[in-house]
Amino acid sequence: MSEVLKIVGKSPPRVDAGEKVTGEALFSADILRPGMLHARVKRSEFPHARILNIDTASARRLKGVAAIATAEDIPGEPAFGGVIHDNQPLAGDRVRYLGDAVAVVAAESEKIAEKAVRLIKVEYEELPPVFDPRRSLDPAAEKIHPGGNLICHHKTRKGDVEKGFSESDIVLERQYSTQRVEHAYIEPEAVVAEIGPDGVLTVWGSHQSIYNIRAAVCRVLGLPMSRVRIVQTAVGGSFGGKDDCMSVLSVRAGILSMMTGRPVRLVNRREDSLRETYKRHPYYLSYKVGLKRDGTLLAMEIDIIADGGAYASMSPFVTWRSVVHATGPYRVPHVKTDVRAVYTNNVYTGAFRGFGSPQVCFASESLMDEIARELSMDPLQLRRKNMLRDGDITATGQRLNHRVSLNEVLTAAAGPAAWEKKRKNYPGENTGKAVKKGIGLACSYRGVALGAEGVDATGAIVRIHADGSVDVCTGLVEMGQGLKTIFCQIAAEELGIDLGRIAYRGNDTSLIVDGGPTVASRSTVMGGSAVRAAAIELRGRLFQAVSTELGAEPSEMESRDEKIRLRKNPEKFVPFLRAVTLALDRGMDLHSFSWHEAPPIWWDEEKGEGDPYFTYVYGCDVAEVEVDTETGRVNVLKVWAAHDVGKAINPAAVRGQICGGAVMGVGMGLLEEVETKEGSLRTVNLDNYLIPTALDVGGIESFIVENPDKFGPYGGKSVGEPTCEVAAPAVANAVAHATGKRIRDLPINLERVVLGRKLSK
Amino acid sequence: MSEVLKIVGKSPPRVDAGEKVTGEALFSADILRPGMLHARVKRSEFPHARILNIDTASARRLKGVAAIATAEDIPGEPAFGGVIHDNQPLAGDRVRYLGDAVAVVAAESEKIAEKAVRLIKVEYEELPPVFDPRRSLDPAAEKIHPGGNLICHHKTRKGDVEKGFSESDIVLERQYSTQRVEHAYIEPEAVVAEIGPDGVLTVWGSHQSIYNIRAAVCRVLGLPMSRVRIVQTAVGGSFGGKDDCMSVLSVRAGILSMMTGRPVRLVNRREDSLRETYKRHPYYLSYKVGLKRDGTLLAMEIDIIADGGAYASMSPFVTWRSVVHATGPYRVPHVKTDVRAVYTNNVYTGAFRGFGSPQVCFASESLMDEIARELSMDPLQLRRKNMLRDGDITATGQRLNHRVSLNEVLTAAAGPAAWEKKRKNYPGENTGKAVKKGIGLACSYRGVALGAEGVDATGAIVRIHADGSVDVCTGLVEMGQGLKTIFCQIAAEELGIDLGRIAYRGNDTSLIVDGGPTVASRSTVMGGSAVRAAAIELRGRLFQAVSTELGAEPSEMESRDEKIRLRKNPEKFVPFLRAVTLALDRGMDLHSFSWHEAPPIWWDEEKGEGDPYFTYVYGCDVAEVEVDTETGRVNVLKVWAAHDVGKAINPAAVRGQICGGAVMGVGMGLLEEVETKEGSLRTVNLDNYLIPTALDVGGIESFIVENPDKFGPYGGKSVGEPTCEVAAPAVANAVAHATGKRIRDLPINLERVVLGRKLSK
Repeated sequence: MSEVLKIVGKSPPRVDAGEKVTGEALFSADILRPGMLHARVKRSEFPHARILNIDTASARRLKGVAAIATAEDIPGEPAFGGVIHDNQPLAGDRVRYLGDAVAVVAAESEKIAEKAVRLIKVEYEELPPVFDPRRSLDPAAEKIHPGGNLICHHKTRKGDVEKGFSESDIVLERQYSTQRVEHAYIEPEAVVAEIGPDGVLTVWGSHQSIYNIRAAVCRVLGLPMSRVRIVQTAVGGSFGGKDDCMSVLSVRAGILSMMTGRPVRLVNRREDSLRETYKRHPYYLSYKVGLKRDGTLLAMEIDIIADGGAYASMSPFVTWRSVVHATGPYRVPHVKTDVRAVYTNNVYTGAFRGFGSPQVCFASESLMDEIARELSMDPLQLRRKNMLRDGDITATGQRLNHRVSLNEVLTAAAGPAAWEKKRKNYPGENTGKAVKKGIGLACSYRGVALGAEGVDATGAIVRIHADGSVDVCTGLVEMGQGLKTIFCQIAAEELGIDLGRIAYRGNDTSLIVDGGPTVASRSTVMGGSAVRAAAIELRGRLFQAVSTELGAEPSEMESRDEKIRLRKNPEKFVPFLRAVTLALDRGMDLHSFSWHEAPPIWWDEEKGEGDPYFTYVYGCDVAEVEVDTETGRVNVLKVWAAHDVGKAINPAAVRGQICGGAVMGVGMGLLEEVETKEGSLRTVNLDNYLIPTALDVGGIESFIVENPDKFGPYGGKSVGEPTCEVAAPAVANAVAHATGKRIRDLPINLERVVLGRKLSK
Repeated sequence: MSEVLKIVGKSPPRVDAGEKVTGEALFSADILRPGMLHARVKRSEFPHARILNIDTASARRLKGVAAIATAEDIPGEPAFGGVIHDNQPLAGDRVRYLGDAVAVVAAESEKIAEKAVRLIKVEYEELPPVFDPRRSLDPAAEKIHPGGNLICHHKTRKGDVEKGFSESDIVLERQYSTQRVEHAYIEPEAVVAEIGPDGVLTVWGSHQSIYNIRAAVCRVLGLPMSRVRIVQTAVGGSFGGKDDCMSVLSVRAGILSMMTGRPVRLVNRREDSLRETYKRHPYYLSYKVGLKRDGTLLAMEIDIIADGGAYASMSPFVTWRSVVHATGPYRVPHVKTDVRAVYTNNVYTGAFRGFGSPQVCFASESLMDEIARELSMDPLQLRRKNMLRDGDITATGQRLNHRVSLNEVLTAAAGPAAWEKKRKNYPGENTGKAVKKGIGLACSYRGVALGAEGVDATGAIVRIHADGSVDVCTGLVEMGQGLKTIFCQIAAEELGIDLGRIAYRGNDTSLIVDGGPTVASRSTVMGGSAVRAAAIELRGRLFQAVSTELGAEPSEMESRDEKIRLRKNPEKFVPFLRAVTLALDRGMDLHSFSWHEAPPIWWDEEKGEGDPYFTYVYGCDVAEVEVDTETGRVNVLKVWAAHDVGKAINPAAVRGQICGGAVMGVGMGLLEEVETKEGSLRTVNLDNYLIPTALDVGGIESFIVENPDKFGPYGGKSVGEPTCEVAAPAVANAVAHATGKRIRDLPINLERVVLGRKLSK
């Protein structure tokens, strides 16, 4: 490879831009298969109840009804789960939340299916429900699952917090809470299940993690993995939200397809999606911090309860990420953190961009500002005083052996924001005004990729066809984040060819072995490395193939501009397609598979310590707001967002992630909340679920901090999730700066701004 | 691996036996897809004509007709071909044989499609046809293709034949001919084309070589290789016969599917199959041989014309195999061979089990018996005198560096047949009888795999899923020969697991790169080696994964009986599934890809010499017959068939191949002939095409000669084709022995036996 990168680090148009703009991209709900049936779901009528009888007789008699499935029809195991097998695509003995399905109908039209659903009569025996996660572990609380209501309990232990508090000049205790948030992707969930001529069940869908879904479908439908094919179509957003619920839909459509032998389409309406699919976990967070008068942090004791809802889903992993990151990116000698996730009869919660970090980040970064206020220190100075630096030890006892860029991201965002001036001047300027200005910041560190609780490895296949077209295939999927473009750029860079030759095929479980889920902002760092290695291997074979024709050794060659040429004499070259022909004529295989494993990391769950991630990214948002203290309206004037991404493979895509993440964070900070009352959603559609529009966020200025990591491709690390965890606390801190009042519960909506700390919950 | 093989060399039941016996195996004609259309073909009415106009108007008006395609609708190139792109799935400017299609109709039922076909009116201008291949190269003959009527001309040159003849004591000249033979597989050709939700065109079919078909479909339909998926269903026999014609069907169904957006089924009736699909080449063979009075061969001059019919198909490769093998397996110092394939307006000819060898084998082995008779020598002695031995030089100048087993196969067959006694006694015993007995033999050598004219390499993927199920995948297909079982045995042997864990997935172009066609008896030697290497690699990873748990180095382990255990202490083990879990938990990939390239070989087409194959197999059939000289009926009493297969991976499968090949050879020798008259088939269905039944062949005794080759897996070489080239000449020689009359034209049917050498052609 030439020293100078040709396409990595540039921002060519997304390879899937055309199909998105023209409408050619196929979304699952648009699939029309010959002979296709349409499915609708009969849902639970109670948040917690025993099912006594399901009477489908009149529904079955309805003309156009092809099949009705209940739990009794399930050929395999009744439930599945990423960690705990508790999620029942069709409720068996009991329903545990109002999103549960008791039956699913396939009919000639959606209208008939809907009518049949209404004809199904279910007899229930109500059970005492549990809605408040803080009471879920009470001995008197009804057990929602046989093993009790505790899903998991993670901890970190470092030093001795009691000693830390006793040595402290100041000890503060604060309680925070975060809300239930909806992913609110544009496209509700959709699948089409179809049994091919070979008997293989294919489920096309708006899937996020195709191998997880295959595992669930195989488990519940009792099929071996070689008889099930999960294929992802274009996806209209996921943000972590299209995993377990897609397994649920896939199982339901799959069983109906097995019963009828026909393709079955199951598409959630927005109301289904809100009622059924998992949300971001609401957290209740108690922080106790001890520090010296000069602001030096000494001890933190943290206790967190997360509402897991009816099923465990990713709760064990989400709360593990929380326990690792709970202190924020600071030197704290004594740390004790406990995080518990519990079952309730609310809608269940699971993976959501940020994955347990936005909640703790809101709490710890609010707390830092509360400390600064207590000490009358500039919050930026307080952070600089305590922030992790090269070689420091984290809250889990990990020594940071990479370059820690916290000061860089803080400076990158705070400098252009004119932090010091505004921080100093606004309080005075606000005096006597109803509309007050404030500026706040928040920073974070974030472990890259899955971390020590999961196995982190993934594969890539690159193959060149005789016609010079190139397939790049991994088990990781595009869902809007730009993965296709990034992977094609990497392959194009290493093969020295035009992007146009490359087709990304990473959406089909039959193509490649399970390379883990497309989550944890791991695609570039893991999959990108695998693609790069596979492409480099193929390039080496092409160099060998043209060795005679070029009269040179492979070591003297480079592949650039669709040519394999001599590095010292670029005029001497063999065109790419000719090299392919020569290689095939020599009997070489132009197929390469590369497997990329994350560097070794560890976690001791008993002791609550370890090196949980092989590297970290760092980010900082500064937010400037205007608060109307009479109406409670918070106007975000501008966000300055700086993120260490290692290396920006595609800077435009990175900026897109930064802007999107900031807006999502602002939504969490100010607007978004799925409200429930006794397990029932008060938020039934997007008309009463507020997501930020362009008018809700002023300008966003993004700053890419490059800090190449030795483990990432070209030094690349993560960008998807870290961008979304710092905006909410930055806004909260800006609101506190403007109004002088601290709001510790999200979202900071009109009522909370006007009423101050009083909670409506 | 343990020294002792556990399953390789054994004969477990075929892994696909169950589905064949129960009827579960899905054949393409049985595919019913929702919304499927049915296609029928409008065929040419003349063997050679210009198309002036195709009027589809009334056909289109017929209710239930969904689409009609003609050459004008083809989006890509008008024609395809394995070597020469001359085969037109829909005839453009002209038709070249009566099997050509001028249009194809898709309709709601086959009946409607058939009716629509009859409504299509075509105007032709007849062109002078060419039917006799011996006249095809006359300057006056009409050019069937723009480049003229010569498809190819291959030669071998060794020594100086004129010198050889001048030094000879005896020079004989003989003419032979072979007939047009139909593959006569049980299942006529069938495809279903369907465009998936992702726009990928899938063609399910009774395909033989899926990558060849993909290349043709992509070429003619103008689609990139990543947009076309060719999937093979169960195949009811192929014998080389389901290649080009399957491309033709796939293109026709594919274009209709593209036009209608619906699945399209195109199934040939037996009449279509006979009329349209390629046959075994009829050959006209002139042999001139010079020898010493003691029987030592000095020179052979051979000139062959092969009837290629309307399209080149595999003629260039079929006739190349002929030119290499034309002398038979003998030491001949001076050789001059010319083989020409030519176009005619007969049904085209192509690949057929044996692939150009059965024709030359019939001629050369008949000739050896004619020489023996001339010299009053025992034909077996004559062969032993001249046969190739270790280190000898073949007719193409290749030195044989492996153990040449000719004498072993001759002895293995002739001994149990009581050759010497019967050969000596029968003439006397026959005297005065109408029904006479005879015994004859023939032997052959055969180059293994594709040889020097093709690139010979293939890949295999072995992957282990989390549930312990194993996929074995190559680009090579099962078509009854037992490949699935052989490959699963090899993977099971190396992984030390039960066959039941393994699913063979070698029927889908989307799964693995092009590994060449399933032809040339190359699957075991090439694909078997690739499967073995891939399985060994995975086994090594499992050994690594259990290293800690077993407290041993991988080098101390073996994998047997579903356990990874210590070789010296088999009681210490880790069960296979546990090893898989350990490996996956460690982040290892249980996917391995292996690419196997044939050893280097070469061919100089100009000089007519080379080392065309990397190794050879050897075989011998002895046939005993009873000839009713009054009715002409030849009764095959018994065949003793001995074949050097290197190593029998599955002896039962090898015996199956030997028996099947012998019967097919007897069919060619005595019964089978596709008769044509002016390009028109007189053989329109199997009721007037005779294939041997159990009653037509007495007992077959098979002898497996093991002669492990350094290049094959466990020493395995070839078995499919060599078994089918020696039966016809053995029977012909037995008939000559019985009657004293030499019949030099196949088949040796009633008329020829009664009338002697007089030909009906």
